[in-house]
Amino acid sequence: MAINFASDNWAGAHPAIGESLMEHSVGFASAYATSELDRRVEKRFCEIFEREVAVFFVGTGTAANSLSMALLNRPGGVIFTHSEAHMREDEGGAPEFLTGGGRTHGVSGALGRMGPKALDEAIRLFPAEFVHSGQPMAVSITQATEIGTVYSLDEIAAIAEVCRAHGLPLHMDGARFANALVSLNTTPAEMTWKRGLDLVSFGATKNGCWCAEAIVVMDPAKARDLAFIRKRAAHLFSKSRFIAAQFEAYFRDDLWLKNAARANSMAARLAERISRSETARLAWQPQANELFAIIKKPTAQSLSEKGVFFYPWKVPHDAELALRADEELYRFVTSFATTVEDVDNVGEMLRD
Amino acid sequence: MAINFASDNWAGAHPAIGESLMEHSVGFASAYATSELDRRVEKRFCEIFEREVAVFFVGTGTAANSLSMALLNRPGGVIFTHSEAHMREDEGGAPEFLTGGGRTHGVSGALGRMGPKALDEAIRLFPAEFVHSGQPMAVSITQATEIGTVYSLDEIAAIAEVCRAHGLPLHMDGARFANALVSLNTTPAEMTWKRGLDLVSFGATKNGCWCAEAIVVMDPAKARDLAFIRKRAAHLFSKSRFIAAQFEAYFRDDLWLKNAARANSMAARLAERISRSETARLAWQPQANELFAIIKKPTAQSLSEKGVFFYPWKVPHDAELALRADEELYRFVTSFATTVEDVDNVGEMLRD
Amino acid sequence: MAINFASDNWAGAHPAIGESLMEHSVGFASAYATSELDRRVEKRFCEIFEREVAVFFVGTGTAANSLSMALLNRPGGVIFTHSEAHMREDEGGAPEFLTGGGRTHGVSGALGRMGPKALDEAIRLFPAEFVHSGQPMAVSITQATEIGTVYSLDEIAAIAEVCRAHGLPLHMDGARFANALVSLNTTPAEMTWKRGLDLVSFGATKNGCWCAEAIVVMDPAKARDLAFIRKRAAHLFSKSRFIAAQFEAYFRDDLWLKNAARANSMAARLAERISRSETARLAWQPQANELFAIIKKPTAQSLSEKGVFFYPWKVPHDAELALRADEELYRFVTSFATTVEDVDNVGEMLRD
Amino acid sequence: MAINFASDNWAGAHPAIGESLMEHSVGFASAYATSELDRRVEKRFCEIFEREVAVFFVGTGTAANSLSMALLNRPGGVIFTHSEAHMREDEGGAPEFLTGGGRTHGVSGALGRMGPKALDEAIRLFPAEFVHSGQPMAVSITQATEIGTVYSLDEIAAIAEVCRAHGLPLHMDGARFANALVSLNTTPAEMTWKRGLDLVSFGATKNGCWCAEAIVVMDPAKARDLAFIRKRAAHLFSKSRFIAAQFEAYFRDDLWLKNAARANSMAARLAERISRSETARLAWQPQANELFAIIKKPTAQSLSEKGVFFYPWKVPHDAELALRADEELYRFVTSFATTVEDVDNVGEMLRD
Repeated sequence: MAINFASDNWAGAHPAIGESLMEHSVGFASAYATSELDRRVEKRFCEIFEREVAVFFVGTGTAANSLSMALLNRPGGVIFTHSEAHMREDEGGAPEFLTGGGRTHGVSGALGRMGPKALDEAIRLFPAEFVHSGQPMAVSITQATEIGTVYSLDEIAAIAEVCRAHGLPLHMDGARFANALVSLNTTPAEMTWKRGLDLVSFGATKNGCWCAEAIVVMDPAKARDLAFIRKRAAHLFSKSRFIAAQFEAYFRDDLWLKNAARANSMAARLAERISRSETARLAWQPQANELFAIIKKPTAQSLSEKGVFFYPWKVPHDAELALRADEELYRFVTSFATTVEDVDNVGEMLRD
Repeated sequence: MAINFASDNWAGAHPAIGESLMEHSVGFASAYATSELDRRVEKRFCEIFEREVAVFFVGTGTAANSLSMALLNRPGGVIFTHSEAHMREDEGGAPEFLTGGGRTHGVSGALGRMGPKALDEAIRLFPAEFVHSGQPMAVSITQATEIGTVYSLDEIAAIAEVCRAHGLPLHMDGARFANALVSLNTTPAEMTWKRGLDLVSFGATKNGCWCAEAIVVMDPAKARDLAFIRKRAAHLFSKSRFIAAQFEAYFRDDLWLKNAARANSMAARLAERISRSETARLAWQPQANELFAIIKKPTAQSLSEKGVFFYPWKVPHDAELALRADEELYRFVTSFATTVEDVDNVGEMLRD
Repeated sequence: MAINFASDNWAGAHPAIGESLMEHSVGFASAYATSELDRRVEKRFCEIFEREVAVFFVGTGTAANSLSMALLNRPGGVIFTHSEAHMREDEGGAPEFLTGGGRTHGVSGALGRMGPKALDEAIRLFPAEFVHSGQPMAVSITQATEIGTVYSLDEIAAIAEVCRAHGLPLHMDGARFANALVSLNTTPAEMTWKRGLDLVSFGATKNGCWCAEAIVVMDPAKARDLAFIRKRAAHLFSKSRFIAAQFEAYFRDDLWLKNAARANSMAARLAERISRSETARLAWQPQANELFAIIKKPTAQSLSEKGVFFYPWKVPHDAELALRADEELYRFVTSFATTVEDVDNVGEMLRD
Repeated sequence: MAINFASDNWAGAHPAIGESLMEHSVGFASAYATSELDRRVEKRFCEIFEREVAVFFVGTGTAANSLSMALLNRPGGVIFTHSEAHMREDEGGAPEFLTGGGRTHGVSGALGRMGPKALDEAIRLFPAEFVHSGQPMAVSITQATEIGTVYSLDEIAAIAEVCRAHGLPLHMDGARFANALVSLNTTPAEMTWKRGLDLVSFGATKNGCWCAEAIVVMDPAKARDLAFIRKRAAHLFSKSRFIAAQFEAYFRDDLWLKNAARANSMAARLAERISRSETARLAWQPQANELFAIIKKPTAQSLSEKGVFFYPWKVPHDAELALRADEELYRFVTSFATTVEDVDNVGEMLRD
């Protein structure tokens, strides 16, 4: 028996996604994001975001983030992210490479979230026209964050306020957009442009698709160059309809929200199990589909041996966690494919 | 009724590809090209190429070409391709961008093929250590070519000979690798490393997959950096198994060869129809799945109106075609999905 | 005895330039292009161009050209130049590298000059929004050209007209700006913005300085990012005053015009000598400080042996020159340092 | 009256440098780093470094550092520097840009120096073959450091030991190479390759030249690509002899060592004055030509008003300085041009 809490990208695909792909595999359609299906799905995005948006499909979350930054590029440009953001730590230098040398500047903040004050101070380290430091070019927040927490709508608005004051665009790394949305019980419009967001990496891969990510630009007038940016980075699919087909199924009958709700509730259920356990405790309360627990190493070892997949995690800089010598921090990720049995099995193992 | 001769990437996907994807959509697998399925398919490539090769999956042919060039990158580097190669004319600057400013140098040659003499002369335009010109870094041939012809094995060997003399690696843009292979009735080993090839963009998307391309490096010892190059360009899929799953079906029961054979034979059938027609004639003999015909404009117009999709094409620099004022050059592309009826219908239309 | 017709950058520096450097070597001044002297020289440029311009000093002509292009950069961008322009053939890939993968597209034209019609046709090869080709980003003309000819004011205006029609900025590679200016007997304003030019690589190194180039942007509002572009490319000098000091002397008492006049007149004198010779003939009439002659190889050989430095040159694509088997094309470059004796000595040698 | 302690790059040039430039301004010489003078000075570098080295002249320290990194470039590459190194904080993104997206990783360490243990731990954050983090590519130390301290020979050797263990090349940002050399009373060989250094940004601009920097590569066999890297970045001077001419004078009669000794001794003299003052105190002991003092703000204000130029400085992360509310940290930089009177005047002002 094997139980996957290693990552939501270890999960496969939801059957509805596969069926949509099969359905659209027959017949021919014009290539390179020009098919009717592409158009139709782009419109669906507009409905979902309650405004005219520009939509660009890509195949990886790293591409969505990096090409978003390329759109916002400025010479000597600096991107402000949380100091442990995915863009900064886990994308192998792609944002830097695909912006031709842009840099990230890490902003610290508790529980994976930058605060507006820390952001403002960080931006002020780069005085206007002081070429030696480079110039601010964008701010990016991760929603849900790398450590399973979520920015509230007010927190997003406060960040956006700082951006506006400095004339900087605000991007959201939404690799787990749906998980955050469901967690906040809000709408895409409320969580983005109504709070001052300019563009979003809208991830669907981790939430049940095979390979479906989209860059959603709130003001289409500012998006024009992105078509060239995407092509130039070799991220324009010829049979783009197969990305579109995934999104079509993803949005149909609220599949995306249901998948995210399932993943979040499984994390909550696991949190509850851990709270009751004596061999493990929560590092902080999960708000989406990632849970972080402090576990005695032998217990964790035993879990692994029983076929549970999960990762040790480095303690975030800003976390005030008191780990004992025999303890370590671990991450558990749930997904649309996580079952009640998976959670309860682990709960049982932890109880023993 | 609509008949697609516009492009092989307007075709959908072969049912067997979809089935393999469905089959591998359940269960979990480790991400980022580390799953058992990834490993198994990589081994399959080794069998097919009859040697240990390094394999890197990517999502687009442009990525396969551009990242191949990034692996071969030299400062001030110049890539020698046919003057009308896809890399040079149709990839939106991706090879240049993803090599950080590498350049292509076009080499002319009849029927879409560079000759060894012209290549040698082109390379000699860049004297060793003359920094003002930059330095040669790679040679790339397209097999099958952009205009539906095929390099013979001897022609490939002759090109490789020139490369060796200048210390340059030789790359093959194999977006239509299978079509060329079938046309030559040879093996991958014979068409590549046994003739001196160093690496191949191995395309499967145009031949019945949804999105499946691989960079195949003949000497794995030279491929190490490609893992970082791919990640840095945001081309590493998290659910990489879904590329692997396509290739698994693609190679099973020689599906890839059958698909290519079908496409090629449909092009040959269409060629035969056109030869017998009085309103159209072949620009040159097709050798793979692209056919170029000279057609009277009103005839072409009528074909379009009847629902046939195909593109006008600019006359290649090196083609010695005598077009009359009322004629134009057109391209017809066949694929695994082209039917005898499609071909015969067009044949009928041209006869009238 | 050695006579330099190899290049104007083999010449040293005019004494007045050295004296200015000596004069400004004492005392201290704020660094990084912020000193009073920098400011003063920038103002001098405004006077000379008869308008408010933005001025950025750099150390090489290649930097001036490449950073100009970086300012105009567009994703997938294509720069239109004469097919034998310096930017395209002799800058080691710097424009491509410093624009992060921009490409040049060569436009042919007789006597080193693009014509407006050929330019227009070239631009039309890149249909709007067709991402596969990339997008036009700039046009660059060389004045004086690589082969010693000069665009007339009307020709510049005609080029600018095409640029305007396509919404493209127009750049001038003015490595030999002064030579062209003197040749046309006009003013900087007339030769640039009054004819529709947007920015100029204003070269002084070849005309008697040690290392003094400037990017002059006609509309300062569009120049802001150039400060960051220059710094990011490591082209901002700390002791920038020493570039400024060269320009101060360069403009004082019309030194720059006198130097150029000298160089041009020496080329004219040499042309006259060659016209009268029986062993050599002009390939075309020189208009600035470069002269191209067709010479019998033994004659050229003999010249070399007598200590005259000059280069063989490949015959331009568009030149209609009928060379005999024993002839070759050679380039002779004059400079502020060329003497009447140098010219007459060579004249003598050619007569024998 | 104005006294410059703002920066050593606010100083002008030593008379001997100017004289050498004047001397070499007449006559002609082959361009682009091929002249006899270039060759001669390159040989001089070999003598000074007591081995065959490869030498590449550039115009700015930022170019020397960035192009050094470009030579060492790896895809997804990470450069380890002190967290407050010039390359990381003050070069406007040039190292990142000129390496096509390389990143710096800051390593903390007291008094501006990385320790070997901290470096080793930092490198270990990037596990081999873990593409998501990128890969280590180089280590760079600054000698003298940004804050006027100097690595001892043993400290350099210890850093080099860590580099060797991880297979990483070691670079030295020697913008103030001579100041460190004089401070340690050692030789270039001892301070570099005999301690395991691989290449050096050898700065002369701050020490009395106008614009003279060199990249010195200890193993010429590894330097070949640098010629293309330099050209491609537009950093190859046509009249390269004028950089060479500066170096010729710089090395003649030990001018460079004398200049550095002067600068260092002026810093020491100022330190002594400050130690005796009651309104200011040393932040730490200066070891080269930069001095950092903690001064009451009104005192500093008064100094400024009297015409002394110097900068406030942010307190280094690793410094254990207890500043009172009315105090601030300030930087004073001395140079070859600093006089005893300058120092004593400031000493007087501080006493009052």
